[in-house]
Amino acid sequence: MNRLFNFSAGPAMLPAEVISTIQSELLDYKGTGVSIMEMGHRTPIFDEIVDRTESNIKQLLDIPDNYHVLFMHGGASHQFAAIPLNLLEQGDSADYLVTGTWSEKAGAEAKRLRPEVNVINAESLIEGKRGVTKLSELNLNPNAKYLYYTPNETIGGLAFESIPNVAIPVVADYTSAILSEPVDVSKFGLIFAGAQKNLGIAGISLIIIRDDLLKDLNSDLPILWHYKSMNAERGLYNTPATFAWYVARLMTDWMLEKGGMSYFAKKNGDNAARLYQYIDQSQFYSNDVQIESRSKLNIPFLLSDESKNDLFLKQAESNGLVALKGHRSVGGMRASMYNAMPKDAVEKLISFMDTFANNNLS
Amino acid sequence: MNRLFNFSAGPAMLPAEVISTIQSELLDYKGTGVSIMEMGHRTPIFDEIVDRTESNIKQLLDIPDNYHVLFMHGGASHQFAAIPLNLLEQGDSADYLVTGTWSEKAGAEAKRLRPEVNVINAESLIEGKRGVTKLSELNLNPNAKYLYYTPNETIGGLAFESIPNVAIPVVADYTSAILSEPVDVSKFGLIFAGAQKNLGIAGISLIIIRDDLLKDLNSDLPILWHYKSMNAERGLYNTPATFAWYVARLMTDWMLEKGGMSYFAKKNGDNAARLYQYIDQSQFYSNDVQIESRSKLNIPFLLSDESKNDLFLKQAESNGLVALKGHRSVGGMRASMYNAMPKDAVEKLISFMDTFANNNLS
Repeated sequence: MNRLFNFSAGPAMLPAEVISTIQSELLDYKGTGVSIMEMGHRTPIFDEIVDRTESNIKQLLDIPDNYHVLFMHGGASHQFAAIPLNLLEQGDSADYLVTGTWSEKAGAEAKRLRPEVNVINAESLIEGKRGVTKLSELNLNPNAKYLYYTPNETIGGLAFESIPNVAIPVVADYTSAILSEPVDVSKFGLIFAGAQKNLGIAGISLIIIRDDLLKDLNSDLPILWHYKSMNAERGLYNTPATFAWYVARLMTDWMLEKGGMSYFAKKNGDNAARLYQYIDQSQFYSNDVQIESRSKLNIPFLLSDESKNDLFLKQAESNGLVALKGHRSVGGMRASMYNAMPKDAVEKLISFMDTFANNNLS
Repeated sequence: MNRLFNFSAGPAMLPAEVISTIQSELLDYKGTGVSIMEMGHRTPIFDEIVDRTESNIKQLLDIPDNYHVLFMHGGASHQFAAIPLNLLEQGDSADYLVTGTWSEKAGAEAKRLRPEVNVINAESLIEGKRGVTKLSELNLNPNAKYLYYTPNETIGGLAFESIPNVAIPVVADYTSAILSEPVDVSKFGLIFAGAQKNLGIAGISLIIIRDDLLKDLNSDLPILWHYKSMNAERGLYNTPATFAWYVARLMTDWMLEKGGMSYFAKKNGDNAARLYQYIDQSQFYSNDVQIESRSKLNIPFLLSDESKNDLFLKQAESNGLVALKGHRSVGGMRASMYNAMPKDAVEKLISFMDTFANNNLS
C-alpha cells in the first residue's frame, strides 16, 4: 500500500480507516449477502443508515430541535438554484455577499432566476492583501428575505471571521468548512454543503434548514428540489444516492470516534497556523490574504518565481504530496487540508517546501 | 462470502466481478496512491474514466454521431423537471403517454411546470389484463413538441412492444431497460436513465440527446440542468458524482466483455420467457399483463392466496432469493432481473416457487 498526502480541494482525501471499512464490507454488507451498493433504499438496513447519519450530524454540530437535516442529490452548485427557487417568490429580493468564485456563481444563478436579488461585492483589497469587507460598510437591502454568504471560499482562500449578524435568515454555503469546527447553527436559517470534503464522496449535499424556511412549493421549482417535500420524505422522495449516504454515515461515525468538533477544530487550526507561519516568514512563498480573513482549510500560496511552478508540483509529487496545484482560475498553489489530513502531513509539506525554496532561491 | 440472488428493482444486483474490482482497487487506484473516491475530477485519471464510459456506451448502443452522451447528477426523477424546462418554452405543449407510476409522475411534473402539457392515459384493461394502448387509438396533440413515454414501467411491469412512430422527437425514460438489449437510438430525440439498474449505483443519470435538442437556456431552468451547458462541459460543469461515474465505467466494460447487447438481450429475454412460462401454467401464481405488453425486466406476480405473501417472502429469503416484494403501491411480488442477474437464478426462483405452491395450494 502506497497512500499519499492528497491536498486536493475536493473530491478530497478520506481517512484510510473509512476506506478500509468500505472495502471490507463491500461485497457483503453486515452479513446480508448483498453489497451496500445493491441495497434498496426502502429497507430497514438503509433506514438505519439514514437515522444514524442524521443523529451523528445533530450530535456533532449540536443542532437545535427546530432544524432539519436533509441529504439531497447533487452538489452545492445545485443549491445555488434551489435556494432562491425555494425561499423567494418572483419579485422578492435577497442579499448575496461575494467574496470569491463560489459566492459569485451563487449570486449570478440566484439573480438569473430571481432578478431582484442584490449581488454585493464584499471582497476588499488593502495594501495588496485581499480580505472580507466589514458588514457595516456594505449596502444591504432592508427588504432582503435572506443574507447569503460563503464562510470559506475554497478557491481564493478567503474566510469570514464571524457569522454575519443580521435580523433576516442567514444562508451559508459551508461546503469546504462543514464539520471542520463547532458552529452555532442557531445563527443560521439554512446551511448547505457538498459532501466531497468532510462528508465523503461527491454527488450528495447536506442541508440543515430551520423549520420556518420549509416554504410552500413555488410554481417554477422542480419538486425534487423542494425542501418541504424532501423533508417530509426524509430525503427519500426518489431513489437517493445510497452509497454516498453510507459513506457520509461512516465519515460522521469516524468524526465522533476521533473526538468530535473540538478535536477537528484544534487539529485543523493548528495545521493552518503552522503553514501560514512558515509561509509568512519565507522569502520564497507568499499568501495574499489579510490575516483575519484567512481560510483554515484552503491555503493558497504563490512561489516568488512562478516559472518554478511545474517543478514544484513534480517534486512535491515525488515526495508523496499530491494535488497542490491551485485552481485553474487563479493559478499558483493551494493546500487543502480537511479533517482527514493527518497532522504530520503539514510538517512533511513544510519540510519539502523549505528544501525546494533553498534549492531555488535566486 | 454468502452472496444472494437479489431481485431488487433498484438499487439492483451488480455483477460480483465488478464489485470485486472496486474492492481490490479501492485504497489505491491503479498505483496512484489515492482512492478513486478521493480523485479530483479535473485530472487525467478521471478524464480517462469519462472518455472510456462514453465510448463504451456509444459502442454498446451503436449511437449515431449526432447524439451526445452525458452524465448528470440525480436520478431519472430529476429529469422529469429538466426535460420540459429544457425542451419547452412557456406555452409549448408535449404529449405524455401514461402507462404506469413513472410516466404518471413525469407527466404531472411536466404539466406543473408547463401547463400546456398533454397527459394521456395509454394503459388499457382488456378482460382483466393490463396493456399498452395502440398509438393510433390515442388523442395526440398535433402541436406537441415531443412525445414522452416510458418503454418499461418498473413498478407495473408494462412495456411497449415498439418505439412510437411519430414525426416529433421521442423522449424516453429508459431507466429500467437501458443497455438490456439493442435499441435504435436514431429513433429518439432524448433517452435518459437512472444508473441504479444496469449502470451501477444510484445518484447519476445517463442522458443520450440528439444535437438539435441542445436548446438555449430558458429563464426558469437552473443552469446545472441545462443540457447544452452540461454538454459543453462534458458533464463536468460542477464536481460530478465521480465514484458513481467510475462504477458506470466498470459496468460498461463488463457488458462489452460479456458480449454486448446481443448477449444481454438473449439472456434477459430467456430469463423472462422462462419465468412467464412458469407463471402462466401455474394455478398458484398469476401475472395480469397482456402478453405483448409484458416487461422483460420487471415481472410482477400475485399469489392466488395473498395471505401467504409474508410466508412466501420469508421462505424465499431463507432460500437466498431476496427483495421479491412488489412495490409498496401495488403489493404482491416482483422479480426484477437486469443484466447482472445470473441465468441460474431463474431456475432457482422457479424451483422455489413451485415447491412453495405445492405446499400451499388449498
